[in-house]
Amino acid sequence: MDFDVDREGSATLAEAVAAAVERAIVDRRLPPGARLPSIRRLAEAKGVSKSTVVEAYDRLVASGRVRSRPGSGFTVAVEPRRPSVDPTPVLDRDIDPSWVMRRSLEVDPTIPKPGCGWLPSEWLEEAGIRRALRAVARDPVARLVDYGHPLGHPALRRLLSLRLGERGIEVEPQAIVLTAGASAAVDLVVRHLVEPGDAVFVDDPCYYNFRAQLRLNRARVVSIPFRPDGPDLEVFAREAEIHRPRLYLTNSGPHNPTGGRIGPATAHRLLNLATRFDFTIVEDDVFADFETRPSPRLAALDRLERVIHVGSFSKTLSSALRLGWVAARPERVEDLSELKLATSFTNDDLAAQVVVRLLADGSYRRHVEGLRRRIASARAQVLRELEKLGLTPWSTGDDGLFLWVELPDGFDAADLAKQGAAAGIIFAPGDVFSPSLSAGRFLRFNVAQSGSRRIWDFLARTLGRRG
Amino acid sequence: MDFDVDREGSATLAEAVAAAVERAIVDRRLPPGARLPSIRRLAEAKGVSKSTVVEAYDRLVASGRVRSRPGSGFTVAVEPRRPSVDPTPVLDRDIDPSWVMRRSLEVDPTIPKPGCGWLPSEWLEEAGIRRALRAVARDPVARLVDYGHPLGHPALRRLLSLRLGERGIEVEPQAIVLTAGASAAVDLVVRHLVEPGDAVFVDDPCYYNFRAQLRLNRARVVSIPFRPDGPDLEVFAREAEIHRPRLYLTNSGPHNPTGGRIGPATAHRLLNLATRFDFTIVEDDVFADFETRPSPRLAALDRLERVIHVGSFSKTLSSALRLGWVAARPERVEDLSELKLATSFTNDDLAAQVVVRLLADGSYRRHVEGLRRRIASARAQVLRELEKLGLTPWSTGDDGLFLWVELPDGFDAADLAKQGAAAGIIFAPGDVFSPSLSAGRFLRFNVAQSGSRRIWDFLARTLGRRG
Repeated sequence: MDFDVDREGSATLAEAVAAAVERAIVDRRLPPGARLPSIRRLAEAKGVSKSTVVEAYDRLVASGRVRSRPGSGFTVAVEPRRPSVDPTPVLDRDIDPSWVMRRSLEVDPTIPKPGCGWLPSEWLEEAGIRRALRAVARDPVARLVDYGHPLGHPALRRLLSLRLGERGIEVEPQAIVLTAGASAAVDLVVRHLVEPGDAVFVDDPCYYNFRAQLRLNRARVVSIPFRPDGPDLEVFAREAEIHRPRLYLTNSGPHNPTGGRIGPATAHRLLNLATRFDFTIVEDDVFADFETRPSPRLAALDRLERVIHVGSFSKTLSSALRLGWVAARPERVEDLSELKLATSFTNDDLAAQVVVRLLADGSYRRHVEGLRRRIASARAQVLRELEKLGLTPWSTGDDGLFLWVELPDGFDAADLAKQGAAAGIIFAPGDVFSPSLSAGRFLRFNVAQSGSRRIWDFLARTLGRRG
Repeated sequence: MDFDVDREGSATLAEAVAAAVERAIVDRRLPPGARLPSIRRLAEAKGVSKSTVVEAYDRLVASGRVRSRPGSGFTVAVEPRRPSVDPTPVLDRDIDPSWVMRRSLEVDPTIPKPGCGWLPSEWLEEAGIRRALRAVARDPVARLVDYGHPLGHPALRRLLSLRLGERGIEVEPQAIVLTAGASAAVDLVVRHLVEPGDAVFVDDPCYYNFRAQLRLNRARVVSIPFRPDGPDLEVFAREAEIHRPRLYLTNSGPHNPTGGRIGPATAHRLLNLATRFDFTIVEDDVFADFETRPSPRLAALDRLERVIHVGSFSKTLSSALRLGWVAARPERVEDLSELKLATSFTNDDLAAQVVVRLLADGSYRRHVEGLRRRIASARAQVLRELEKLGLTPWSTGDDGLFLWVELPDGFDAADLAKQGAAAGIIFAPGDVFSPSLSAGRFLRFNVAQSGSRRIWDFLARTLGRRG
């Protein structure tokens, strides 16, 4: 009990007790692994109530300084404190989609992650979110404790209707369902439409999580080669004749991972195929706001007849606020809303209200304009680096986050990603995106995560060695 | 263009424009349905930029004053503004679970809702949440833009481990998965464990959403009569012999809808049945914090061997922050975490950080103690009202939110709920909870939502008429 409780500088007695214990830990009077006094003993020794000690220990556990082991009381945490992430072991296993995803979720900022699918956190809108949080905290009519509307926060749906209208997608607020992110939106739609054994078409290559979601829903996944202007429609029609798809899941804006885009002529023919073979198209448009030159959307051409449109704010604003949406024709929305109520009840209205403020006061528009400029400049820089290595991206698209790059003959992207991981660089090798495993020589580069010199030095070394 | 833009009292020019339009709407110079000037025209007329007008209109759309109809510009909203909810038509259809749920979600505070499943909003912790929001907004290390840890916010999992430990459930933070609410937690577990056609046992009566979730996952639902001390184990064993259940989904704490509780002897025999027939038990414990006298949990007795424990903060703290959890044995958590990553990616770390603050500074503990006292007093009052009507609750439980009450001979609870709806009172008739439709004479009362005199006058009138 080698520490003094000093009330000075602490708002409450519990804070003072917590601070005293924390000092003892920092000074190593309580070394890592040491047991803390029991709640009763400390309360008696310091002349405070047990609930004060309980609160103090809660604070220390919350901060990670102290561990609570069931049955063995409280001990000083052994691991060095990391800001907010548990130590995730780096598994020594093959590079698969889950590996890329999990490594990308690690927050160590010293590891360059050209294979990551999102922006660096310092590019996102943290200051705006802090401002919006303070405004929500002050707003007397903010909804902070109730279950929200079954479809999601009404003001946000109204603003989404407005924004989608600007992209030519005409949809009433009551035909929009909010979800906990775009992944949850796609999952909701797939669960609603796909029966076990139904065929679902995806692009080859495509966002790897699509396949995981479809397998979970017991779909038969059929992949269609993706060209710079959309899926190969000859192959699509042939396979549709054979498999009679229920659904086609794609990005019609900036395509993940290739950076391609469904061109107007391809879009038109694709919608005719959808009518002919009676399937639905899910257009996942999470990268929409990175476009500098908006291209037509399937949902706009078809007026949400056979197309379901999905989006989110995770890529542009914040990934910590899980907010996505589904826009669909009204009778579909009715069913989707029942399904949502059964599987996840209502939405997080706190996150919705934060986003509403940023949309309504113009911050979001300004933020996204800044992002586009920053991405364009990062993109130009990555293109220069690739040129030095003699590499040319596959797609002719001139904006967006991703570049899809083929390695020279004799190189394997998965091998390169393993060597990269050993050198502390996370790459995304092509085959994690390719259902047919035919992208073994491709890498996906996120231009916003490819600024580090270490990436280019590593590639110059590695490609030079055998090139 | 009959309005002046006055910068006085507005922080920005866009706010001033929005305020000017709003004044014109309030004064009826712009009546409901009227078209607003186009963005270009207003910008020219008032000598401001188009982006200022865009921002002003965004604000008005967000507030609900103005509607944006795709293709027809901006019009003054026709409906009277309601705080934050779209007009939901009251459907003239039979009273089913979805009806009760949707009506309960309506926010009109003048409608008494004794059939609702949660607390009135003014009982929840709004002030604490505002305080926590301000603290998060100020906290320089708050995580506001990044994807979080795949299992969910680490500090919250540490605190949950501590709290569950206090209830005898020993679980490490890395064996807890956070989800977007308890419904999402149950759905995650069911999706993980249940194959199409698997038998799943539920209580009769049970929380109605369990059946919706199980049907979605194509389970065969088998219901077991629930007694005041748990499921009828004779029936359970007989049906288990026939159906070989994969899962049993229940509340072992305060039971929804009956207020019963699984007693220690029943719990022990139930766990033996689980071993004998090799099934898993999901213990949904969302009402745990309403207990004044904690009863043993299956998860504690069995040490999470065959039991999966689910909980949330939606019932006690706020339903607007969607935060639930699953505690399970470690190898299950690995699978659940993969499934979560595929279906909804990560969690809302903003909500988690708000809750961490309330847990760590003692507010949550104090809030819950206050709630228990308030519920106990409401419960005593409802028991007095029931006594006056000659009604006795079915269960002998002495705390919790729910009373399960049988109507006199000759009364039908669904009829009564229809009459109640016509009189502006939302009741929950027993058969919405009963898979076998054998609770046609029961009503579930939420003691915290049953304070209105109108409820008891209505019941006295209705029961008196034929009683």
